[in-house]
Amino acid sequence: MPYTVQAIADAVSARAVGDLTLEVDRAAEPGSAGARDLAMAMAPHYAAVLPEGDARVAMLWEDADWQALNLDAAILVGRPRLAMAGLTALMDPGQGDAPGIHATAVVHPTAALAEDVSLGAFCVIGPGVKIGAGCRFGPHVTIGADAVIGTHAVVRDHVSIGARVEIGDRFRAQPGARIGADGFSFVTPEVSGIEQARASLGDQGDAKSQEYVRIHSLGSVWIGDDVEVGANSTIDCGTIRNTQIGNGTKLDNLVHVGHNTRVGQHCLLCGLTGVSGSVEIGNFVVLGGQTGVADNLFIGDRVITGGGTKVLSNAPAGKVMLGYPGIKMDTQIEVYKAQRRLPRLFKDVAALKKAVFKSDPSD
Amino acid sequence: MPYTVQAIADAVSARAVGDLTLEVDRAAEPGSAGARDLAMAMAPHYAAVLPEGDARVAMLWEDADWQALNLDAAILVGRPRLAMAGLTALMDPGQGDAPGIHATAVVHPTAALAEDVSLGAFCVIGPGVKIGAGCRFGPHVTIGADAVIGTHAVVRDHVSIGARVEIGDRFRAQPGARIGADGFSFVTPEVSGIEQARASLGDQGDAKSQEYVRIHSLGSVWIGDDVEVGANSTIDCGTIRNTQIGNGTKLDNLVHVGHNTRVGQHCLLCGLTGVSGSVEIGNFVVLGGQTGVADNLFIGDRVITGGGTKVLSNAPAGKVMLGYPGIKMDTQIEVYKAQRRLPRLFKDVAALKKAVFKSDPSD
Amino acid sequence: MPYTVQAIADAVSARAVGDLTLEVDRAAEPGSAGARDLAMAMAPHYAAVLPEGDARVAMLWEDADWQALNLDAAILVGRPRLAMAGLTALMDPGQGDAPGIHATAVVHPTAALAEDVSLGAFCVIGPGVKIGAGCRFGPHVTIGADAVIGTHAVVRDHVSIGARVEIGDRFRAQPGARIGADGFSFVTPEVSGIEQARASLGDQGDAKSQEYVRIHSLGSVWIGDDVEVGANSTIDCGTIRNTQIGNGTKLDNLVHVGHNTRVGQHCLLCGLTGVSGSVEIGNFVVLGGQTGVADNLFIGDRVITGGGTKVLSNAPAGKVMLGYPGIKMDTQIEVYKAQRRLPRLFKDVAALKKAVFKSDPSD
Repeated sequence: MPYTVQAIADAVSARAVGDLTLEVDRAAEPGSAGARDLAMAMAPHYAAVLPEGDARVAMLWEDADWQALNLDAAILVGRPRLAMAGLTALMDPGQGDAPGIHATAVVHPTAALAEDVSLGAFCVIGPGVKIGAGCRFGPHVTIGADAVIGTHAVVRDHVSIGARVEIGDRFRAQPGARIGADGFSFVTPEVSGIEQARASLGDQGDAKSQEYVRIHSLGSVWIGDDVEVGANSTIDCGTIRNTQIGNGTKLDNLVHVGHNTRVGQHCLLCGLTGVSGSVEIGNFVVLGGQTGVADNLFIGDRVITGGGTKVLSNAPAGKVMLGYPGIKMDTQIEVYKAQRRLPRLFKDVAALKKAVFKSDPSD
Repeated sequence: MPYTVQAIADAVSARAVGDLTLEVDRAAEPGSAGARDLAMAMAPHYAAVLPEGDARVAMLWEDADWQALNLDAAILVGRPRLAMAGLTALMDPGQGDAPGIHATAVVHPTAALAEDVSLGAFCVIGPGVKIGAGCRFGPHVTIGADAVIGTHAVVRDHVSIGARVEIGDRFRAQPGARIGADGFSFVTPEVSGIEQARASLGDQGDAKSQEYVRIHSLGSVWIGDDVEVGANSTIDCGTIRNTQIGNGTKLDNLVHVGHNTRVGQHCLLCGLTGVSGSVEIGNFVVLGGQTGVADNLFIGDRVITGGGTKVLSNAPAGKVMLGYPGIKMDTQIEVYKAQRRLPRLFKDVAALKKAVFKSDPSD
Repeated sequence: MPYTVQAIADAVSARAVGDLTLEVDRAAEPGSAGARDLAMAMAPHYAAVLPEGDARVAMLWEDADWQALNLDAAILVGRPRLAMAGLTALMDPGQGDAPGIHATAVVHPTAALAEDVSLGAFCVIGPGVKIGAGCRFGPHVTIGADAVIGTHAVVRDHVSIGARVEIGDRFRAQPGARIGADGFSFVTPEVSGIEQARASLGDQGDAKSQEYVRIHSLGSVWIGDDVEVGANSTIDCGTIRNTQIGNGTKLDNLVHVGHNTRVGQHCLLCGLTGVSGSVEIGNFVVLGGQTGVADNLFIGDRVITGGGTKVLSNAPAGKVMLGYPGIKMDTQIEVYKAQRRLPRLFKDVAALKKAVFKSDPSD
C-alpha cells in the first residue's frame, strides 16, 4: 500500500522536504532500501550506507543535509524512536484476519458483543461476556464467563481470558497470553518447613513434612486501559479481590504476575520477569528482563531494575537497582568490580598476615 | 449463591458464633465488604478496617472478641490460610463451562471416556485415550494418542497432553500447560566444545564446531495423583523412560521440567523455575521462583531454595539454599552482607599495605 | 512395532553381534528391560543391572564383552548419545495424528499447500500461506497471512506462526511455540528515566514520568533450515527487518528471542533463556538454561554460557562464561570460592587493623 511523503510526515508529526508527492510502499533499512522504500536513516552512520541501496526517500535526523545524500525527499525527525512509533502504526499490515464473526466461533447466547467485533476461527466466548466496539480477536481465543472487555482490543490467537476478568479499552494481547489462571496458593495443615525457614532465614526447625491443601481463587483479574500483555505471559487471579494491572502498563513475553499483586500505571515488565503474589508495584516502574520480585513486597513509583535483578526487599520510589539481591545499581557496580579483584585481595591479606603476625601463609 | 454461616463454618472445620442462619453471597476484604459479604479479617489489623465496610459477618482469628466488632456472626479460625482453603473450595465459581461433550469436540472413536466427562469446545482427543470419571476439560484441549488420565481432573483451556502421557487422579492444569513436549536433546557426531568446557570448567579445547543431531523422545510423562501444573508450564518427555512428577506436587506458571527428570511427592516449584534434564528431586522440596537446577543433579528431600537460586551441585536432604550458585541460605546472607562492605575492605587493605610495606596505594 | 537387531544396527551405523534376526519392540532401561526390549546399557555401570531384567539384546559400548553378559545379540556403539539419536529417530512413535487435512481445519482458498501436507483438527491457515511437501501439523495450529514454510516441518499442537514469517526446511515446533508475536518496543515522547539511568549507570536525573507510545512491528521472523523451537517459546517480529534464527539452531522450552535479534547457525538456547532485542549472536553458540542477554549486544561464535549467566556486555568469540554479570567461567569460579571465604577475610583484616593501627575492631 503506497504512502506519500506528506502522509508519512503527518503521521509522525515531522517536517518533510523535497517532493512531498513521492510514494513509498514500505520502510526498509538504508543499505537495502529499494526505489519505492522509505529508508530509515535517523543517524549519520545509517545515512552513510544509503548509497548501497536505491532509496529516493529517507527518514533522517532533524538537521540532516538531505540534499547532500542524493535523495528526492526526506522526513526530518527530532526523536527517532518516537517517529518510529507513528510510522509503524501507519504501516502495520496486521495478521490478515478477516473482519466479522467467523462461522466456526462459538458464542454463548448470553454474551453481548458490540456490532463490529471480529472473532477469528474457533473462538469460544462464554456466558455473560461483554465485548466493546472495535475489538478484534484472532483465532482460538477463549473468554470465560462474565468477562468484560472494553473497546478496540486487539487480541492475537490462542489467548485465554478467564471468567470474570475485567479489561479496559485498547487492550492488546500477544499469542498465548493467559489472563486469569488460578493463583498458585497452597497451605499445609500445620506450620511448614518453608514458613519456619522464612522466619529464621534458613532453618526449617522441626516442621514436619505435610501435603498441600489448595486455596482456590475467588477473585479474578482487573486490567486498565491501554495495557499490552506479551506472548505466553500469565496473570493469575486474586484470592479474594482481583489481581490488578494499571492503565498503560506493558508486559513483555513470558512474564508472570502472581495472585493479588497490583501493578501500577505505565510500567514496563520485560521478558521472563516474575512477580510473586501480593506484591504492590507503583507507577512508571521498569523491571528489566528476568527480574524477580519476592512475594508481599512494595516497589515504589519510578523504580527501575536492570536485567536479572532479584528484588528481595522493599524498594523505595525512584531507586535504580541491579543484582541478586537487588541493591542500588551504582553500589552493585562497585561490588562487581571489587569481586573480580577478590583473588588478588586474598593474596594481599595473606602477605600482610605474614608480615605482621609472622604467620605462615599456608595456614 | 448464598451460604449460611453454619455451612461456611462446616466447610472450614471451625467454630461459628452469633446468628448461624445468616447468609452471605461471597467473601470480601474487610474494608469493602458489604452487608451480604463475608469479611476476611483473620488478624487484628484487618479487623481494624471493618468499620469502613458494612459487613455483618466476618471470619476472625480464634480468640477474637467478635461482639466488640459490631458483627452479627463470626467464624473463628486457628490457621487462617487453612481456613481460606476450605472457604475458597466451597465458593469457587469455576469458569462457567457447560457440562457434557461439546458438539465441536473431536473425539477419536477408540478413545474411552467415562460417562460424566465434560469436554469444552474444540477439544481434540486422540486414539486410545482413556479419561476417568468426573473429569472436566475446558475448550481447546488436545490429548495425544494413548494418554491415560485418572478421575476428577480439572483441565483449563488450551492445555496440551501428549501421546502416552499417564496422569493420576484429581489432576489440575491451568491454561496453556504443555505435558509431553519432546525433550531438548541433541548430540554432535564428535566431542563438542560444550562437553570439553564442562569437563574443564571453562576450556573448549580444540573441539571443532559441529551440527547437532536430534535425539527423539521415546518415553513420555508420568504424573501421580493430586498434581497441579500452572499456566504455560512445560514438562518434557523422557528419552527412554518417562519423566515423572510425584503425587501431590504443584507447579506454578512458566515452570520447565526437562526430560528424564523425576520430581518427588508434595513438592512446590514456583514461577519461572527451570529444572534441567535427568535431575532427581526428592519429596517435600520447595523451589522458589526463578530457581534453576542444572542437569543430572540430585536434590534431596525437604530441600528449600529461595527465589532466584541456581543449583549447580547436588543438594543434600533438608538444605535451605539461596544464591547463584546456591549455597546454604545463612552462609549466603553472610556473603551478601560482606559483599556490600567490599569497597570499604579494599580501602582498609590498601591502608594496611601502605603502613606495613610502605607501598604506594596508587600501585 | 518390531525391529531386527540388524535394522537397528543399520540405523545407528554400528556393529551388531550375535543373532541379528532377533526382534525387539522398544528400547528400555537395562534393569527393567523385558525379553522383547532393547536394553540401553552403553556403559559398564548400566550393564551391571542387566541381570535384574530379562533383556536378550542390548546396546553396549564398543569393546563390551557381550557374551559375558548372557545376551543373544548386541549392538556395539562408539559414541552412545549419537547412537541414541539414530535409535530414537527409528523408533519415534509420534503423536498418532492422522494424515491428511482434518475436516475441521480452516484453510484460506489462497493458501498453497503441497499435496501431502497434514493438518490436525482446528488448524487455521491464513491467506497467501505456502507450505512445502511433507509437512505435518498437529491440532490448533494458526498460521498468519503470507507465511511461508519449507518442506518436512513437524509442528505440534497450539503453535502460532504469525503473518509473513518465513521458515526453511525440516522445521520442528513443540506445543505452544509462538513465532511472530509483536516486538516489545515502546517509546516516551521525551527522554525517559530509563534512558537516563542507562546512560549514567544508575541515575534517572530529572526525567519526567511519561506514558508509552507503541512501536509496531513491520518486520516478521525469518528461520533457516533444521531449526527447532521448544514448547511455549517465543520469537518476536522485527521492527523494520526480520528477526532471524540461523540454520540448525535449536531453542528449548520457554525461551524468548526479542525483536530484531539475529541468532546464528547451529546454536543451542536452553530453557528459560531470554535474549533481548537487537542482539547479534554468532554461530555454534550455547546459552545455558536461564541465560539472559541484554539488548544490543554482540555474542561471538562459539560462546558458551553456564546456566543462569546474565550477559551484560559484548562477548568475544569462544568465550566460556558464567555468572551475573557473566564473566569468564574460570575467573567466576575463583570469585565464587573467594566469596565464601569473605567473612573470614573481614575478620583477618580487622585483626590486622588492630595490630597495625591499634584500632578498636568494634569501630
